[in-house]
Amino acid sequence: MPQKTIQEIADHVGGQIIGDTAIQIESAATLDSAGAGQITFLSNPKYVPRVKETQAAAVLVAQEVETNAVQIVTVDPYYAFMQAVVLLHGHREHPETGISSLATVADSAKIGQDCNIHPYAIIHDNAVIGDNCQIYSGVFIGPNVKIGNDCIIYPNAVIYDGCQVGDRVIVQSNASVGQDGFGFATHKGEHHKIPQIGIAILEDDVEIGSNCVIERGTLDNTIIGKGSKLGDQVAIGHGTKIGPHCLLVPKVGIAGSAELGHHCVIGGQAGIVGHIKVGNMVTVAAQAAVINDVPDGSTILGAPAIEANKGKRAYALIETLPDMRKKLRSLEKEIAKLKDK
Amino acid sequence: MPQKTIQEIADHVGGQIIGDTAIQIESAATLDSAGAGQITFLSNPKYVPRVKETQAAAVLVAQEVETNAVQIVTVDPYYAFMQAVVLLHGHREHPETGISSLATVADSAKIGQDCNIHPYAIIHDNAVIGDNCQIYSGVFIGPNVKIGNDCIIYPNAVIYDGCQVGDRVIVQSNASVGQDGFGFATHKGEHHKIPQIGIAILEDDVEIGSNCVIERGTLDNTIIGKGSKLGDQVAIGHGTKIGPHCLLVPKVGIAGSAELGHHCVIGGQAGIVGHIKVGNMVTVAAQAAVINDVPDGSTILGAPAIEANKGKRAYALIETLPDMRKKLRSLEKEIAKLKDK
Amino acid sequence: MPQKTIQEIADHVGGQIIGDTAIQIESAATLDSAGAGQITFLSNPKYVPRVKETQAAAVLVAQEVETNAVQIVTVDPYYAFMQAVVLLHGHREHPETGISSLATVADSAKIGQDCNIHPYAIIHDNAVIGDNCQIYSGVFIGPNVKIGNDCIIYPNAVIYDGCQVGDRVIVQSNASVGQDGFGFATHKGEHHKIPQIGIAILEDDVEIGSNCVIERGTLDNTIIGKGSKLGDQVAIGHGTKIGPHCLLVPKVGIAGSAELGHHCVIGGQAGIVGHIKVGNMVTVAAQAAVINDVPDGSTILGAPAIEANKGKRAYALIETLPDMRKKLRSLEKEIAKLKDK
Repeated sequence: MPQKTIQEIADHVGGQIIGDTAIQIESAATLDSAGAGQITFLSNPKYVPRVKETQAAAVLVAQEVETNAVQIVTVDPYYAFMQAVVLLHGHREHPETGISSLATVADSAKIGQDCNIHPYAIIHDNAVIGDNCQIYSGVFIGPNVKIGNDCIIYPNAVIYDGCQVGDRVIVQSNASVGQDGFGFATHKGEHHKIPQIGIAILEDDVEIGSNCVIERGTLDNTIIGKGSKLGDQVAIGHGTKIGPHCLLVPKVGIAGSAELGHHCVIGGQAGIVGHIKVGNMVTVAAQAAVINDVPDGSTILGAPAIEANKGKRAYALIETLPDMRKKLRSLEKEIAKLKDK
Repeated sequence: MPQKTIQEIADHVGGQIIGDTAIQIESAATLDSAGAGQITFLSNPKYVPRVKETQAAAVLVAQEVETNAVQIVTVDPYYAFMQAVVLLHGHREHPETGISSLATVADSAKIGQDCNIHPYAIIHDNAVIGDNCQIYSGVFIGPNVKIGNDCIIYPNAVIYDGCQVGDRVIVQSNASVGQDGFGFATHKGEHHKIPQIGIAILEDDVEIGSNCVIERGTLDNTIIGKGSKLGDQVAIGHGTKIGPHCLLVPKVGIAGSAELGHHCVIGGQAGIVGHIKVGNMVTVAAQAAVINDVPDGSTILGAPAIEANKGKRAYALIETLPDMRKKLRSLEKEIAKLKDK
Repeated sequence: MPQKTIQEIADHVGGQIIGDTAIQIESAATLDSAGAGQITFLSNPKYVPRVKETQAAAVLVAQEVETNAVQIVTVDPYYAFMQAVVLLHGHREHPETGISSLATVADSAKIGQDCNIHPYAIIHDNAVIGDNCQIYSGVFIGPNVKIGNDCIIYPNAVIYDGCQVGDRVIVQSNASVGQDGFGFATHKGEHHKIPQIGIAILEDDVEIGSNCVIERGTLDNTIIGKGSKLGDQVAIGHGTKIGPHCLLVPKVGIAGSAELGHHCVIGGQAGIVGHIKVGNMVTVAAQAAVINDVPDGSTILGAPAIEANKGKRAYALIETLPDMRKKLRSLEKEIAKLKDK
């Protein structure tokens, strides 16, 4: 394994070394498991006692702590740790297949420089793929799809006709992008499919997790904003607009024609109903049910979702309902007795 | 883009024109975004004020409203809009691949007339595919599967051995149909797989969303009734029967051996436990947890799910629990004081 | 269809026959649907009345009951039924493709004896596949993946680079194993991908349902313990450890760095937050939200999840909140009146 000196790492992340500047680092590890030759990090102050006992060779910290490890003091230790992991381990290396003779690329499709198109990938008519893209096996790129530069589309992901993907976008395995929205006109008890003529747009630096489903729009487009990251199995309804730099944790579901602002964080399994507006920098707890517009900067939880501080107490009190009911009944009796007197 | 006169559209949907009968329509759009050359619709009366201000060239309405747009008055404007969208934009056109030499079709499989079987699709022994079907790339059609006429199976969908699919069925990308049900006999702490010898049946006019999972039956069959539409990532357990003309919104989960009647609407992320009966024309709200039989015509919500009007108030009151608790305590004190007197 | 005598079945499952020992059994069926030539079982005592009326030829029971069917008395009738189904119907037979010339197997990959590698499967550099494995079409086996003996990987499942799979593991269609965990360092409002250098490990006898998503670890590995069974669409976060012999019902979501003990049963759509410890033999009800450590042997339900007996009453009382509120107000008035006196 390639090694780096602690000095190389400190220079790379922009930090000050406290301790032996000559040590070598081989790999990155968690606070609990890190040992000789490994670097770890401290970002949550509650783990300060563990840093004291860590066997790690080095630790990234925001300010000097008590520890036997060599410390690198840096402004944002978690970000610095990410930089150190990239330096030590790198991102995934992709197989160099070139444009495989076992792939199917339409004559009218345009493929940029330095792409790897794996066996059994299919790229349909008039699709455009930018430079330096990785198109893994089993990927379907529909007619007229446009994909930017430096994208990675993992195995068996499907991008339907006409959808648009920016630069540096990652789509994980088995994700579906641009399938038909759930749109039917019900007439005399039968449901008639409405052609979904909008598309799905993934802006630059978006990541779509495995087995996500991003519907195309009915009339308007579905948009995932620049830099937003979707965990596995997230579902986005037709015509929904996710603002830039949001984090949608696995299993989130957002119904059609909803709008999210920028820098929202939506917890796992949370649901947001259609046709509402969620503001900027909103945090939604796991499993919450958001059924109304949400103002900027809110933190909400519960089903139905309410302001978090209030909600945390309120939902915790459900447990006391049998007791409250008993008390109510006993009070009723007491009052009846008092009235009798 | 092909154009239609407003008269052609009115004739097609069966409506009366109010205004200039000579205008040309190019495309369909939402009430808010529609502009010159576009047609939109009004079905929800609360949007009447927006119709007044719409820039659309034409609007489909149930009765005359105040607007500058040309109106087509018709009984069911949303259904008429669907018809207009089909007239103007059509449904998706499918690539004409014929039976690709890059597909694998078993000698014993039967393929109907005018099918497109895309590269890397595989059709196993004794499978039967009807006429005019679209089998996209990466699709797996297992041994002995039967598929009717005019079906569309989108990329990388998987239909396991022996399953049956009716006419005009659509299966979106990455859906799984007929995989083994979650059936294990636990003995001495180990879980032993029970062969799942039932199949999954998709009746005529069913649509299965992307990344749905429809288990085959353990002994009885799993059935999705005629005309029912399942959104993305819906999960159906083994042996469950969904009646005809139901709408199951994305992320619904229905456990094994449950039965749903006809024309049920199940909201996003709602769950229905196994071995219960949900009647006809039942509406279940998003995220609801249905744990008991449900009578015909009910509308229910919440976890656990209760009658909707009652439930809406009840669940909204969770928020007041801290306040109720405080009041209870203060009443206890008041009564103690009164008793002391 | 091959037949077995009731005696052959009784010998196979280890039970005593009550009734005609000469009858022939053709197939297995449910208590309600079983008829001539069919065997069924009784494991839940509440169905005793149905056994009395069953048309089945034979029934597996734990103790003699009143019925016209021939009975096989055996200690664990459900386990015995599983054995009977295997005897009568067998497990799925897999197509004998050998190593298809339409599959892509890297020169450096090692394939064991008697494997079937279907068309359009791809096996990357240095992957190792054990003996007697079924690798269906469209499966992606990444570089350096190790798979044991007797595994079945169904169509279009994806196993990312470096992941490890034990013996007798089943991965159903469209599942994703070892994709990147949801790990980003947020710096100046942008989310930066942390290379996910851990892997995902599926131990012996694990089953992974269709469209499941099992993230690889960020630094530590994600582990699914020996004999654990995951239903469809289960999501497991990075670095999470599931103990042996757990049952995770479809749509369960478990966030990163959580730990589950052995023999846990997690109900459908339940969620478990990250970084907590769930003990051994814990049962979590469907749709529960587990947000704290859970002691061994607990049964919990609700969102937030609490002890089940308590929780069942508490959550059922939400429905009475409007009534409780009304009573509280009336008590307040009563007390005010009493004080006035």
